[in-house]
Amino acid sequence: MKAQIFSVGTEILLGNITDTNSKYIAQRLSEFGIDLYKMVTVGDNFDRLLKELKNAIGKVDYIFITGGLGPTEDDISKEVAIRASGKEDKVVIDEESKKKLDSYFKSNERALSVNIKQAKFPKDAIILPNDIGTAPGCIIDCDNKSKIVLMPGPPQEMKYMFENKLLKYIKKEAVIKSKTLRIALLGEWDMASRIDLHSTNPTISPYFDDEGGFLRISAKAESDDKALILLDEKEKEVREVFGPLLLSDDGKRKEETLIDLLKERKEKVSCAESITGGMVASSIIDIAGASDVIEESYVTYSDRTKEKILNVSYETLRKYSAVSKECAYEMLDGLYDRTKSALCIITTGYAHKGEAFIGVKYKDKKFVREFKFSASRNKARRWTKNRAMDLSILIMRGMYEDNFDI
Amino acid sequence: MKAQIFSVGTEILLGNITDTNSKYIAQRLSEFGIDLYKMVTVGDNFDRLLKELKNAIGKVDYIFITGGLGPTEDDISKEVAIRASGKEDKVVIDEESKKKLDSYFKSNERALSVNIKQAKFPKDAIILPNDIGTAPGCIIDCDNKSKIVLMPGPPQEMKYMFENKLLKYIKKEAVIKSKTLRIALLGEWDMASRIDLHSTNPTISPYFDDEGGFLRISAKAESDDKALILLDEKEKEVREVFGPLLLSDDGKRKEETLIDLLKERKEKVSCAESITGGMVASSIIDIAGASDVIEESYVTYSDRTKEKILNVSYETLRKYSAVSKECAYEMLDGLYDRTKSALCIITTGYAHKGEAFIGVKYKDKKFVREFKFSASRNKARRWTKNRAMDLSILIMRGMYEDNFDI
Repeated sequence: MKAQIFSVGTEILLGNITDTNSKYIAQRLSEFGIDLYKMVTVGDNFDRLLKELKNAIGKVDYIFITGGLGPTEDDISKEVAIRASGKEDKVVIDEESKKKLDSYFKSNERALSVNIKQAKFPKDAIILPNDIGTAPGCIIDCDNKSKIVLMPGPPQEMKYMFENKLLKYIKKEAVIKSKTLRIALLGEWDMASRIDLHSTNPTISPYFDDEGGFLRISAKAESDDKALILLDEKEKEVREVFGPLLLSDDGKRKEETLIDLLKERKEKVSCAESITGGMVASSIIDIAGASDVIEESYVTYSDRTKEKILNVSYETLRKYSAVSKECAYEMLDGLYDRTKSALCIITTGYAHKGEAFIGVKYKDKKFVREFKFSASRNKARRWTKNRAMDLSILIMRGMYEDNFDI
Repeated sequence: MKAQIFSVGTEILLGNITDTNSKYIAQRLSEFGIDLYKMVTVGDNFDRLLKELKNAIGKVDYIFITGGLGPTEDDISKEVAIRASGKEDKVVIDEESKKKLDSYFKSNERALSVNIKQAKFPKDAIILPNDIGTAPGCIIDCDNKSKIVLMPGPPQEMKYMFENKLLKYIKKEAVIKSKTLRIALLGEWDMASRIDLHSTNPTISPYFDDEGGFLRISAKAESDDKALILLDEKEKEVREVFGPLLLSDDGKRKEETLIDLLKERKEKVSCAESITGGMVASSIIDIAGASDVIEESYVTYSDRTKEKILNVSYETLRKYSAVSKECAYEMLDGLYDRTKSALCIITTGYAHKGEAFIGVKYKDKKFVREFKFSASRNKARRWTKNRAMDLSILIMRGMYEDNFDI
């Protein structure tokens, strides 16, 4: 099965808005084993869209069109699809859709007369009702050559319609099951180079986002059971390669994994942050339920406040500077003295140089590790935050020792 | 002048990544008065891209291609462009590009042999050096019919190359000058509804990003001077509408505007954060030079730590709760007592309900304001951070009083 996606809107071509619909549809299609040939964005131009659409009909099984279903003259997608499919003389008013418009516009005649075109469809079209907006979608069958699927442009409406109205009409090629495995401490290439990326089923792909690296395994099979078996086998291989560096297999954010550990053990975390300046605490508090595990945290950005708040000694700061293993250990001790939290996390470093020390104390274990990043100021800060999460999880799991080799 | 954009990458068709390059280029082209005909995404497939590209040559003046310039076999964009332009027998190794690769890979022979294709170009191509990555871009002239512009896929590299290497070769239809005006405290629609968006020259467009709302004014004219005059006139109109809510006209981040104010006055800022949990401090520390203005900051997430660190009274917490005007005022006082910073910022609220109190104390002025957001937990936290910046800037400028009406 093959597909093509059109997004329609001059505002996209002007760069005023980002088309997120195409990505969403693309991702879902790949999960159904349907090949996407291309994605095309055109403006609100009847002739140009018509030409593109005629070109696509017969070449692919599904043609998805998002946008251009509104009530104004600029909204041309449905009209173009009707022309391209040769169903111009089969257009009728769909009574269900008209009723909905009636009730939406509370029988305001003027509004209705403008919007009535949203209730017009080819007689044999499958109508996709819009429960959260005014423009219904539809599926137009082009004499069994291709099916044109029209959906509204607002992403919320499109997604809702896709999942709740359209999905049952899409013929899936196979069952696809995926798993997301978060990996600790490794840079993107370091992570990717450790595994064989050439496997075709399951596929395994490396990704990198704001939280660091992760792997996505996707298995295709005739049934759920068979897909899950393939997935489990591949996951075992990955576990053997990465060992303790595998943080989670459920796609959870690192902060969530850490909070879950703390909640299970009824323990708290506190931070004293210099280079990350509040980002570690904030990223934990980003997760609902953080109030069970974090009460207080400190940003100690200057030498003076490392002394004042964390009791780091003047001698240490003078002799080794604030960006040193020695200072990191004293920050940890000072933070624990102040908070008595089971888990204490400290950061210190030079963002512009990409140098950071991360200290983690968990119960009677205490570790400081130095990191160097080739990255911009803000990335270096974010990566320090991510590494702090990695270390904390590994240490809480008892999987980290001094000289831990990644 | 007309243009078309191709983004190349199977990972985009799989829905794994969002193509942000096309939007960026689209936006810039519209600022130059160049018409964008369509945007097309294709996978790493030689024949399909070749067909699309041949189809576009001669129809538009500029064909932009992003992605597919890497060193692997999957990276096909340059090879396809060379084939489509009929310059296969004019390909040479560009010595400048090779030198850069040499130094990047420190003469590692194996890496070099894989990457050398990144230094190969048609003899008459204009090469666009890549200062922040390994893949240079280029401009290939298809016998004066169309110019193919090849740029790398990573958005940072693409943008840098676009602005610093490519721009001088793009023939603009007119001079376009733009200004970005940051607006405080208003939601997107509230901001947009106050101005007439129908003006065509200058155009004025509302935007919303992680920091809140801003307006972009773009004026088109024959000369820089004339464009600037148009821009200034429009800016005056906007200033009249928004008054003190206009935070900056230089596109700076709010945190930068705030830091500049503090630096000028040689003053410091401290925060005590509950709902934002370190995000305010971290966003300030995100800016280079923050160490001049911030030394210490506190995350007081629980009632207990509001008492312990900020000296909020037990009675206030019991009677009014931690999410109250009363608690906010006491947090401000406690923070000032502890830090003596000229600017003190506190936040408290319920992220999941979208309720927040923001307190700002600047010298002898002290304000607390309540905000309600219809937003998810994380957006509510981010918006609270943004509003805290807005209020702090307005208050430092002496433009905010009690009952300040937006």
